[in-house]
Amino acid sequence: MRTRAAVALEAGKPLEIMEVNLEGPKAGEVLVEIKATGICHTDEFTRSGADPEGLFPSILGHEGAGIVLEVGEGVTTLKPGDHVIPLYTPECRECASCLSGKTNLCTAIRNTQGQGLMPDGTTRFSMLDGTPIYHYMGCSTFANHTVMPEIALAKVRDDAPFDKICYIGCGVTTGIGAVINTAGVEIGSTAAVFGLGGIGLNVIQGLRMAGADMIIGVDLNDDKAVMAKKFGMTHFINPMKAQRPVVQEIVELTKTERDQIGGVDYSFDATGNVQVMRDALECSHRGWGVSVVIGVAPSGAEISTRPFQLVTGRVWKGTAFGGAKGRTDVPKFVDWYMNGKIEIDPMITHKLSLDEINTGFDLMHEGKSIRAVVEY
Amino acid sequence: MRTRAAVALEAGKPLEIMEVNLEGPKAGEVLVEIKATGICHTDEFTRSGADPEGLFPSILGHEGAGIVLEVGEGVTTLKPGDHVIPLYTPECRECASCLSGKTNLCTAIRNTQGQGLMPDGTTRFSMLDGTPIYHYMGCSTFANHTVMPEIALAKVRDDAPFDKICYIGCGVTTGIGAVINTAGVEIGSTAAVFGLGGIGLNVIQGLRMAGADMIIGVDLNDDKAVMAKKFGMTHFINPMKAQRPVVQEIVELTKTERDQIGGVDYSFDATGNVQVMRDALECSHRGWGVSVVIGVAPSGAEISTRPFQLVTGRVWKGTAFGGAKGRTDVPKFVDWYMNGKIEIDPMITHKLSLDEINTGFDLMHEGKSIRAVVEY
Ligand SMILES: [Zn+2]
Ligand SMILES: [Zn+2]
Ligand SMILES: [Zn+2]
Ligand SMILES: [Zn+2]
Repeated sequence: MRTRAAVALEAGKPLEIMEVNLEGPKAGEVLVEIKATGICHTDEFTRSGADPEGLFPSILGHEGAGIVLEVGEGVTTLKPGDHVIPLYTPECRECASCLSGKTNLCTAIRNTQGQGLMPDGTTRFSMLDGTPIYHYMGCSTFANHTVMPEIALAKVRDDAPFDKICYIGCGVTTGIGAVINTAGVEIGSTAAVFGLGGIGLNVIQGLRMAGADMIIGVDLNDDKAVMAKKFGMTHFINPMKAQRPVVQEIVELTKTERDQIGGVDYSFDATGNVQVMRDALECSHRGWGVSVVIGVAPSGAEISTRPFQLVTGRVWKGTAFGGAKGRTDVPKFVDWYMNGKIEIDPMITHKLSLDEINTGFDLMHEGKSIRAVVEY
Repeated sequence: MRTRAAVALEAGKPLEIMEVNLEGPKAGEVLVEIKATGICHTDEFTRSGADPEGLFPSILGHEGAGIVLEVGEGVTTLKPGDHVIPLYTPECRECASCLSGKTNLCTAIRNTQGQGLMPDGTTRFSMLDGTPIYHYMGCSTFANHTVMPEIALAKVRDDAPFDKICYIGCGVTTGIGAVINTAGVEIGSTAAVFGLGGIGLNVIQGLRMAGADMIIGVDLNDDKAVMAKKFGMTHFINPMKAQRPVVQEIVELTKTERDQIGGVDYSFDATGNVQVMRDALECSHRGWGVSVVIGVAPSGAEISTRPFQLVTGRVWKGTAFGGAKGRTDVPKFVDWYMNGKIEIDPMITHKLSLDEINTGFDLMHEGKSIRAVVEY
């Protein structure tokens, strides 16, 4: 079949909207009609050429929602008409990682996915002249139709709006999951969130859900505080305007009569800046502070600290897709949205057509959008 | 009273054996006759002048065992005749840290202890001319008698030999505790231990107790493998003789038909070398590997890695005194030794008199001792 897609022809160029060929689903694969897709920083990381593993030409996009149109041989858990969210972290339930019960990082199709290919080592997309087009993060939601492995699709309820739940395919789950799966925040905790973009806002609403007492937001832009407060932030620090280094500010803010040491129980980096990751670790509490790296750092960047920070009880962790097992957890996140337990609507700041997709990248660069969503 | 002690008069000089004055215990304090003390790398770190916070003159030593001679006002949990192990990490059971249930890093007397003083801000030791002598790590076990806070003494059974259980006051508990308290190793785990000195051997016996399946020891000295095998090491790697970088060696060694990713479930640095700490993190398993820093790094040294290591599921932690709550856990370690559950005897390689204490430091430098113990 043919479908319309925004194709990344080469690094650093705007996406080009065009007709492409799409082969039907092979064994274990599913043809999905994408109804909506968010535009994420990770797409931009690859589009811009900053991602050393970026492949071209490719169809980017990894944050979508849609409807199953056709299933390949042997597919048993999905049928035409099912509503689904594509998963860049699949859940095969059979590999050593899935069976470990300790991680969401399924490795069943990791090698081919990293090479922009379906599990059989080929692509389903091609240019009209026959040139193969790489898949992206196993999803390629910047195409109106895509083919995905069955294990990389979460079946979700039928009454959830595509233009909102597509965000659960990345940012919402990453931010909230970092709190509830990776950090395991307890009721009454104190926390600091560095970076109040989309991920940061979702960390904040995760902390609110988890019953945190003090939710300190940190951002260089005061304007970000307005939305963050709506999502549950209780204190705001702009490091450019603070009198002391941000670590010290947080330590002082969290000292109590009972606890003269100070520091937050949990901290989260949602900036991707390695110096901020260090601050996040070091503002966490001596003895038990847990700091979670969420942001993606520039290629080659390294985090550092004195080992004393760890020896005195701080724990440094990271999270991918919020530690969520996609097929198991994503349907729950959709339920939570539909039940009003989590908010998404205020974060979807822009709606675009596929033809306007490059505007979405512009809005992101200008810091005007939290999330721009393309509806097909 | 007067007692005999090995005094560190200035940085970098041998200790001097001399008579010193010792004031009796004040409120909340206890006079202890030290019967035996180990000589630890941490004592040497301070003696040599490498420790930027080292104070002189001081009486070093923090790994002892002895008998209570006298208790100060208000002391309720100890009485003359009790056998005790001094704790450089006290357990007050009242501070925010103790009550958190999340850490062993009691902060009740942290400030004064760091300044070489008793909790009231003075010293009990002095030279015969009256010059105050600093306490060390709140213990000063290189004196035949010392005064310590009640909260920094673990009461242990009477039938345990002082010249063995003194090692529980530091190395044994640090190594075994890192496995069972900090890492929480499960039966059937795979593990790597970097550095096969005293701490490394204790990590290895901790892993054996915890039921680890594969215990990989790493050391630059082949001779260390002999003892390590006796304590439970199953595989040995000498990075100088290995064909591939040690991280890759460990990854290959741990790959199975079922798990083609490889990496150990748990890794431990017992070297204090920051590059080794990085290797320890990076040889741990994608998705769930936990790496524990035990070694004390040179002042100012920093650990680094790509944040990708954390984002893909590795956890970087540290441990002090093996995460053990001294008054609660140390008596259990003594029981375990007496029951034959843990071994100490083969690690006590040298016995010295106080007059020979500088020989103990020489043996350590020459790599000839695992632990040299001074008996009074
Ligand atoms: Zn994303
Ligand atoms: Zn899997
Ligand atoms: Zn020690
Ligand atoms: Zn305490």
